[in-house]
Amino acid sequence: MSGMPAVGTAQQLDRLVHERLRLGILGALSVSESLTFTELKKLLDTTDGNLSVHARKLEEAGYVACTKGFEGRVPRTDYRLTPAGRRALDRYLDHMEALIRAMREK
Amino acid sequence: MSGMPAVGTAQQLDRLVHERLRLGILGALSVSESLTFTELKKLLDTTDGNLSVHARKLEEAGYVACTKGFEGRVPRTDYRLTPAGRRALDRYLDHMEALIRAMREK
Repeated sequence: MSGMPAVGTAQQLDRLVHERLRLGILGALSVSESLTFTELKKLLDTTDGNLSVHARKLEEAGYVACTKGFEGRVPRTDYRLTPAGRRALDRYLDHMEALIRAMREK
Repeated sequence: MSGMPAVGTAQQLDRLVHERLRLGILGALSVSESLTFTELKKLLDTTDGNLSVHARKLEEAGYVACTKGFEGRVPRTDYRLTPAGRRALDRYLDHMEALIRAMREK
């Protein structure tokens, strides 16, 4: 029962990071210098539309930065995590770890 | 980079458990024998409407059980975690722990 107040903070998990696909994007970029749109799409097994929407939300929040260019004639978009994105992800992971500890305490 | 495939499984986090309020409900019930609607509402700092909707989803999934009764003349609804709910929450927490490990591995 002592974990109860901590469990109550689940509602305060960063909404922007918590969404599954966005968490996957941030996580993938946290263990890689940069990834292309195509690499992220394959890794996260999602559609162009979904990935675009969620990558844009993260970009708007300043959590990821994207660079558009060409590889030969093929357009190529590179994504990387920004320092603000790294801090937001770390805060989220700390929060989630505290929740897991509280939920496992019986 | 070795955590990359694990990070890719963020998309497979149990959607039913992952939603913040539902995670809060399951977590609170996991550290308590049972809780009333009013106790859950206070703990999770949410509205009647939100709590009703998400508690019902968890009930429909068989993850929580609810008992309606009266305390004097005041209606009272008690919620508790079912064995299936406990298993789903444990699976989710295991999955999330693996993701956190993978995301922290640089």
